[in-house]
Formats: sequence, C-alpha cells, structure tokens
Amino acid sequence: MEDYKPKDLSFIPQIRGIAVVGATAKNKYFILRTFNAAFKGKLYAIRRENKRIEELPDIPVYTRLTDIPADEPVDFVFISVPREKVLEIIKDCVAKGVRLVSIFTAGFADEGTEQGRRYQAELISYLSQNPGIRVLGPNGMGIYFPRLGIRWRTSLPHEYGDCGMVAQSGGLANLMIHGLVNEGVPVSKAFSIGNAIDINVLDALNYLKDDTETNFIITYIEGLPPEAGGKLFKILYECRKPVILIKAGRSDQGAKAAMSHTASMAGTYRAWPYAIHQAGGILVRSFEQLLNLAKFIKFIGARPVNKLCMVSLSGGYGVICADVLGDYGIELPAISGRTRDKLNHFFTLPGTSLNNPMDVALLINDSSSVEQILETLLDDPEIEGIIFENSPNNLALPVRPDVDLVTDFINILKKAKKSSPKPIIVIIEDIGFDEIRQRIKRELQGIGIPVYSDITEAAETIEFVNQYVSAAERIHYKKMY
Amino acid sequence: MEDYKPKDLSFIPQIRGIAVVGATAKNKYFILRTFNAAFKGKLYAIRRENKRIEELPDIPVYTRLTDIPADEPVDFVFISVPREKVLEIIKDCVAKGVRLVSIFTAGFADEGTEQGRRYQAELISYLSQNPGIRVLGPNGMGIYFPRLGIRWRTSLPHEYGDCGMVAQSGGLANLMIHGLVNEGVPVSKAFSIGNAIDINVLDALNYLKDDTETNFIITYIEGLPPEAGGKLFKILYECRKPVILIKAGRSDQGAKAAMSHTASMAGTYRAWPYAIHQAGGILVRSFEQLLNLAKFIKFIGARPVNKLCMVSLSGGYGVICADVLGDYGIELPAISGRTRDKLNHFFTLPGTSLNNPMDVALLINDSSSVEQILETLLDDPEIEGIIFENSPNNLALPVRPDVDLVTDFINILKKAKKSSPKPIIVIIEDIGFDEIRQRIKRELQGIGIPVYSDITEAAETIEFVNQYVSAAERIHYKKMY
Repeated sequence: MEDYKPKDLSFIPQIRGIAVVGATAKNKYFILRTFNAAFKGKLYAIRRENKRIEELPDIPVYTRLTDIPADEPVDFVFISVPREKVLEIIKDCVAKGVRLVSIFTAGFADEGTEQGRRYQAELISYLSQNPGIRVLGPNGMGIYFPRLGIRWRTSLPHEYGDCGMVAQSGGLANLMIHGLVNEGVPVSKAFSIGNAIDINVLDALNYLKDDTETNFIITYIEGLPPEAGGKLFKILYECRKPVILIKAGRSDQGAKAAMSHTASMAGTYRAWPYAIHQAGGILVRSFEQLLNLAKFIKFIGARPVNKLCMVSLSGGYGVICADVLGDYGIELPAISGRTRDKLNHFFTLPGTSLNNPMDVALLINDSSSVEQILETLLDDPEIEGIIFENSPNNLALPVRPDVDLVTDFINILKKAKKSSPKPIIVIIEDIGFDEIRQRIKRELQGIGIPVYSDITEAAETIEFVNQYVSAAERIHYKKMY
Repeated sequence: MEDYKPKDLSFIPQIRGIAVVGATAKNKYFILRTFNAAFKGKLYAIRRENKRIEELPDIPVYTRLTDIPADEPVDFVFISVPREKVLEIIKDCVAKGVRLVSIFTAGFADEGTEQGRRYQAELISYLSQNPGIRVLGPNGMGIYFPRLGIRWRTSLPHEYGDCGMVAQSGGLANLMIHGLVNEGVPVSKAFSIGNAIDINVLDALNYLKDDTETNFIITYIEGLPPEAGGKLFKILYECRKPVILIKAGRSDQGAKAAMSHTASMAGTYRAWPYAIHQAGGILVRSFEQLLNLAKFIKFIGARPVNKLCMVSLSGGYGVICADVLGDYGIELPAISGRTRDKLNHFFTLPGTSLNNPMDVALLINDSSSVEQILETLLDDPEIEGIIFENSPNNLALPVRPDVDLVTDFINILKKAKKSSPKPIIVIIEDIGFDEIRQRIKRELQGIGIPVYSDITEAAETIEFVNQYVSAAERIHYKKMY
C-alpha cells in the first residue's frame, strides 16, 4: 500500500490539440465528426491519404503525427486503427510529445486469445520504457470531458457538472452518463478505461479525488489486480468526496462474464461491502440505486435524514410508506403538540389525517393550506425533512376539473423549498400519465427536490446516505459535500 | 377456521339497477355522472328535491328508494350522505330488496372518535338483524366492475381484464388500477372495502377465488381481526389462482398509521412471510414489486424460470445483470457446444461475445442476425428463456443514423416471441428518451413481453414466481395460471 504512486493526470484540463488516428470513410469519420462538433481546441486527422476530407474540409490532415508542425501541440490522441498498428502510432505519439492517448481498438487481452494477449504485452512493454505518456484503454472509450468538448460519441450531452466517473465499460459509461444527465446530474469528467494497461481505476479515482471540478464520484469496477484492493480502500479513505461504487463480478457467473468482457479478474467480493463501508465509500448493487443516490447527493448533499414527515394523498399508500421507511431505519415521529395546534384547523375535511404519515386528501385542492402545512412542518425542530407522495392519476384526473393540480403541486413544493433548507423528497409513481410525471420531475429536480417513483427507492437512498455519513464522520470528520 | 362462512357475492355480475343516494349539486353530481357515463343498466338518483337534475335530465329522480316502482329492481345502491343519515337509507335499501350497498361516507370508526364508533356500531347492529343485504364500507369506494360500467370515479378505465383486486384503501385501489392498466393488466373486479363492517377482505377474496372472470388476484391488507389470519391462509391454500398480497402495517409506525386510516388492527407481521408462502400466496413489500409481478403473471403466467440467457448490448451491463440474477438464484448456463457451433459465425465483430451473458454489440444493426441468434437460443433445451437488455440511448442515438433501431428492435422481439413459447423479458433503462421507452413498452407488452427498467426488478419478479410455483406445487399441484 505504501508504494502506490498514482499517475499524474493533472494536465488533462490543459488539453489544447487533439488528433484522431484511424477515422475512415466507412464509418463516416464518426469519431472525427464527434470531436469536430464540440472540441474547443485544435483538431487534426491522421490518415494514410494526405488530403483533406471532403465532408470535413476544415480539419487539417497529416499522414503521421510527427508531420504536424512542431509549434502546434497535440496533447491528446484518439486511436482507432487495427490492433497490429497501435504500437506504431503510440511511438509517434511519444515522438510528438503527446500527453494522453486513448486506444479505442479492441482485440487485445479482452479477446481471450494468445495473440490478443501478445499485442497487449508489447504495448505494456513499450510503455514501461516510456513512462511519460499516459494511455487509456485499449478497448475503452477514453475520456469524456464535456467542458472542453471532449466526447467519444456525438450523442453524449454537452452539459457539464460536478459528478466525476470511472468505468471500465464504455457501454456502461454511456448508460450512466445519459442516466445521470437525464436526472439533472451532469458529469465533470468520465473515464472509460477498458483493459487499463496504463491508467487504471485507482489512477482515475485518485485524479477525481483532487479535481476541483468534481464534487462526488461514481465508479464502476469489474475487477482489480489482487494487490489493488488495499490501494482502492486507501484512496477512498482519503477522499473527502462521496464515492459511489458498483462492483461487477460479485457472483461466480458475474465474475466469469467480467473476465471475458475486459479481461478483469473480479477477485473475491465477500469482503467488499464491509471494507468499502469502513473506507467511507458507498457500495450499491444496481444501476437504479446508483442513479437514485447520485441525484440525492447532487440535490440534497450527503446529508443524513433520520426523522421525516411523510405526507400523502392516500392513507393506504401512507401506511405502505411508513412500513418501507421503517424497514430502512427511517423514523416518522409523532407530530408534536405545538405543530398540531398550528395545523389542527386545516384538518377538518373527511379523509384528512393530522398524523405522521399525514393524509392531506382533498386539501390538495387548496394550495395555500398545503403551503402553510408544509412550512409549519419544516419549521418543527423534530422533523428533519419531508417526503411528499402524490399519484399521477390524482394529478392528471382531478375531481375538480377547474383546478390545475399539477401546476399547483409544483408551486407548493417550490414555496416549501424556498422556505427551508431541510430536505424535501417527492414520490410520483410510474403508472402512466408520463408527461405529467416528467414535467414534475424536470421542474422539481431543477430546484433541488429529488423525485422518485417508489418509496423503496427513496428509503434505500436515504439509508445509503445515512450509512455513508456515519462512516465518513468516524473516519475523519470528512468535509461533507 | 371451520366455522368461517364467506358471504355470498355471486349475484354481483347480475346487477341490473343502481341508485345513487346523496349526489349533490355542490360536487356537480360527481358519482351520478360517473355511473351515468358507463353503467349499462338502469340508473336512479335519490334526492330530497323531487325533480329531475338539469344537467342529467335522463336520470329518474325519487325522494326515497322505496318510491321507485316495485317492478324496477335496484340491486346496488351507492350512499354518499352525512353519516347520521346512512342507517335510514340502509333501512330503505332493505325495504326495496337491494342486494349490495356501498357506503362512501366516512366519519365512522375511521374517525377515531366515540361518536364515530357509535354510528358504526348502530349500522353493524342493524345489519346483524338483516343478514340478506351486503354492505361495502363505510369509508370505502365500493366496487369497480368495468365490464358492467360500475366505477367510483369517471377517470377509472373502461377496459376490463382478468386481474381481481381487494383493497381496504380507495386511494390505493385507484393507484393500483391505474398502475395495472398502464402496464397492460386490466382489472376484472376491484373491491375497496374501507372499514369493512360487512364485506371484508376474506369475503372479497373468496368471491374472486371462484370468479370465472378473474385469473389472478391482488390484495392490499391493512389489518385483519385477530382470528382472521387462519381464515386468510385457508382461502389462499384453497385458491388455484396466484394471489399477490401486500400487507401494510408491518412495522410499528405502519401499524399505527393503519389504525388511524381504516381503524384496522394490523396484528403481528412476524409470521406473515412464512405463513403466506406456505399457503401459496405471494407476499410483496412495495407497490412497484406488485406491478412488476402482476404483469409477469399476466403476460408469461406463473411459470418458473431458472436458467436464462442474458443478451445485452453492453458487456458491462451484462456483468451487472449476471450478478443481480445470481443474487436471486437465477442461473446463466454456459452456451452449449451445439448452439455455439450454430452461432459462431455471427460473433466476428469486435465487442461481440458469444457467452452468457451475451454481448451482441454492433450486431444490433443487423436485425436478421439477431433474429437468428434469438431463435437459436430459444431452441436450446438448456435455456428456459431470454432477457434482452437494450439501452434507450443506444436506440435513440444510433451510431448509424440510417438504421431505425427502435422499429428493428421491436420487430426482432416480435419474431422471437412468435418462434417460441419460452418467456422473453426486456430491460429498457429509465434514463430519458421517454417516448422510445414508452413505445417499446406498449408494443412489446402488447404481445406478452414484459418490459422492466432495471435488471433487479426482473430478477426479483422471477424469484417471486419461482417461489410461488414451488409452494403451489407442493400444496396440491395447483392448476397454473
């Protein structure tokens, strides 16, 4: 553990020039078009034929990297040539003084063949002689850095935020980026490291740990070399930002799959949950858990919530919620006498219930009352936050057609959010009426209220946060996000 | 247990005339309009003022039920009058020979007051003298029977299907009905029983157990009288249809909430999971689990699936899926030599992987290959079914813009479904691109392929089904749905 020296990646925000090696007419210069559409620096194409590409006439073309004038720096090279030619290109990169290379080409150790492994060994051997260049891949998508316009697919969002990401799998990185941005959690930098012959999970994680543009981190790990576990735990231990991890290859059948995917040894999972928790990381098991947790951290922060008031429009669903929250150790304290006195006069309509869970029932038709109720609840020192459940059918099909319940509901929550810094969480079930659900999600998540489609998602998320905070506080009074 | 005599509800499909007592101008004759919009039999309004309602001129009006001509039968009466007047109306119902009454009015035991309990006790006492009339409620929505056009809200769907339902809570019944219909699982009959002074969970469940229009049942239970647990287990034990149950009030805070909601004693939950499983019921914990399971039973049946082939477009997500399926005891067997021989020639593109999980990667651009792959897999006796994961970002933002991946994907699965009776399940993550996701869901669920948004949902659902089938087979070779 003592001898681990993470590789220096701090030059990444200073990437000035990018060259693409291997863009072909066959795939319509896909990756070249991608960089051309967004990269803010200078872009070059390296191709056999020394003439401009008709469809992309503004991009200068060279047959070799070393032909680019010496006073034009190329800091990053994206390589998509057949595997037998990769080493040759890397040599040119070193000659040109390139800082970072991304090898998209697959067919190395990931192929599971002797020949694939030999090609990979050759690359590793060459790099060990040339320690100044950093390499992503092979068999990875490289780096996504939307602020600089560095993307590996045209379809990846331009928006950038403060969530860092490391993933071995490019497909999963795409899925995670789209999923996060869709929830209002844009990404600062994402690394897709593939077979990881140089930059590995630890290096990327270590970089993001100190990156000022990154406030929390998502890590997808298929496997680590046997000795790397301890190093991972050390980085997590030192990291003062929440790190959400998902470990693939937990089971035997998953481990076998990971082996064939990125030639990763999945290692023994048994110790992980405890060790990650002890080190202050947050280990999730599914992609959905990951998204749910990321948006909580983004909107509310890594802030523990133990005592909530559960507000709903259906007594029955309120009971289910009380149960599920109880399963995750979240308490619904009785409404205090003082708060009860302030609220009593609102709860005269049939079906309403001034308890916790609270049933506002038809009161929802009267925004001003619900606003006052929420404000009073948030003002109660016994209540650390509110979960508000409303069903899309109630919103879409109001009993009183003259009331625009959707707009009212959004406004009620906007006012509540303004009135207090305490966490507010909304549940809108995924039962159709999709436009309404999406609108509520968009508008509320836009002001920092996470919206979930099931109480279990919310409860599970809160439990992850609560456990993280207790571990982080124990470790070293970590600065919370 | 021996002396339990379930109440006879078999007359319900023969309801000819309905009267609404208490429709007022104040709520724009809400319930009267609801019945008027869909009920296929004769409808009457009972109101103080003996004249037709201007907005609903076709509905005959009487001041008392007993004023309706003797040769015009009224089988069902919906009561929405102040609580102190309910008993008087019930007396008229008995005089008129009404079979079924639904008391919408709240403010009985649910109110938690002495006076509320007294009103409820009076009703119970009167009914014990008049055992021929059946009563739903008070504080419930009554019955939803879409084939006859009996609904308690105009917004409830007209579609009818084969899923029966019992729920104490009306709000939750609405949520469940909308949720089920949105997933392509329409309802045969739903009972919202509220305080359940006459028809209780057991009666409704017993009725649905024998109802020829119902093939599986969803039951939401807040509480049961102490002696009813054994009776419930007996009905489940005898029932040859899958019964999905959700028990609210599992936790202390949930139990307290249930008490204030429908005055139900939640009882001790500890024994439930084991007892329900032994009796052949399926106990879920959340609303989402309930919907996920209901659509599996509807589309695939209560059919056990232990060995699957997992097909995906992302090796990384495939590994996560392998893990999660492993967590739920679902095996991904190695692809057999024979099948491998048949498929080998397809798997030449980089990124593809002929394993289980299988990565078809860019092969997805070639529908005909993927069709042949799926057909070959479904033909393999070692493989009991397929889970196919595709990400909406892959579908929405294809690398080759000339291919309509969404239509292709739907067609691939339609052909696979036609080629084999084995279960096919699709995962499309909920990460935006909502139109595409909804279209795929609609089209595939329309042909019996359940679509989930996360592998965990699918795995959990399969585990519920597998456990149910093993219990049901042990009990008495139950006829599977």
